[in-house]
Amino acid sequence: MMVRRDPATYLPLYLVTDTRLCGDRGTAAVVAEAVAGGVTCVQVRDKDAPARDLLALLTSVAEAAAGRVPVLLNDRVDVYLAARAAGAAVDGVHIGQSDLPPQLVRRLAGGDAIIGLSAASTAELREPAGFAAGTVDYLGVGANHPTSTKPDHPRPLGVAGFAAAAAAAPLPCVAIGGISAADVPGLKAAGAAGVAVVSAICAAADPAAAARELAAQWS
Amino acid sequence: MMVRRDPATYLPLYLVTDTRLCGDRGTAAVVAEAVAGGVTCVQVRDKDAPARDLLALLTSVAEAAAGRVPVLLNDRVDVYLAARAAGAAVDGVHIGQSDLPPQLVRRLAGGDAIIGLSAASTAELREPAGFAAGTVDYLGVGANHPTSTKPDHPRPLGVAGFAAAAAAAPLPCVAIGGISAADVPGLKAAGAAGVAVVSAICAAADPAAAARELAAQWS
Repeated sequence: MMVRRDPATYLPLYLVTDTRLCGDRGTAAVVAEAVAGGVTCVQVRDKDAPARDLLALLTSVAEAAAGRVPVLLNDRVDVYLAARAAGAAVDGVHIGQSDLPPQLVRRLAGGDAIIGLSAASTAELREPAGFAAGTVDYLGVGANHPTSTKPDHPRPLGVAGFAAAAAAAPLPCVAIGGISAADVPGLKAAGAAGVAVVSAICAAADPAAAARELAAQWS
Repeated sequence: MMVRRDPATYLPLYLVTDTRLCGDRGTAAVVAEAVAGGVTCVQVRDKDAPARDLLALLTSVAEAAAGRVPVLLNDRVDVYLAARAAGAAVDGVHIGQSDLPPQLVRRLAGGDAIIGLSAASTAELREPAGFAAGTVDYLGVGANHPTSTKPDHPRPLGVAGFAAAAAAAPLPCVAIGGISAADVPGLKAAGAAGVAVVSAICAAADPAAAARELAAQWS
């Protein structure tokens, strides 16, 4: 197993992209502004894009991030591997409970890939304790609030629910789901290794300013 | 480059699965009957299944085919690789024009994977002539008729259109799109290396009998 970056270094302000919310500006342009504003990680998520379009999107985001923060891809390990094979600076994948099993994702993606896993129920939060060490690097835990960007999200946890989840989980937890700047101090105090946002940056008129405000709330 | 099977051996009667059409019988049960009836290849296609469900579906189909015919997966190279890593007898992937580029698919899937590519326009049919030898094994060419199982299909070719396509293509061509037993002799005469069917087997009351009838028309 290769040594991967400490999740504490990249989880604090974690951006999940939404192609529709980024709009005519383009996802890569929003990512470039968000990274300038202090985002520490970017996950490219587009459940509707065919693989070839997703490869182009991921490559453009990797160029925009320019190696300053890790760039992860939601779900599609093959597109991640294709981007790497084509020379893009991409760093791993984030998977959900209905995606490929984490152990197989680790085998396919290799020891140097960052792998994140979404977890909500108590069983899902505890399951990684049974994985081989290093199978998964962090958990995405939510939803914190009801959110419109992921219609299939589980029941909202709130801050108290997140605190209980983070305490039960064997890995660093990033909170996700309808998070705005006002939520950040409470989630940090509740044990979050970071906060993941979608709309708070992708729908912002000024993504760099939005990222700065979120980063300030974290610090 | 490893030596792969000659497409002439597996293309003649090519089944593409449709989970909904297979219905309560289950896709694996339909595949078992179809293979018993003379199908020479199976492509698992389910654009709606999450990756974990698709992995289970592919594994169940591979068990049903029991190594008697190649089992390919539509689009998801990662799910194919995961199935192989988990020990399933799967043989390759079939990709469309909006999936990952064929050259990257070959790099990810390896030299022993069968790789098929859908092609319809003249440009798509001729493009593989520019690929390195062995990048793609065969082309899926259609639609032959209007078909309900692939709503995004291009304009129907008919037998004359298929003959022109097959003559222009640098690889063996399997005809696809609304094909029934009555179409088989004409397509074979038009230069098809095989015929691919969905509804003709998946929607049949007796998939084994439907496969036997199609195989008889081919022979």
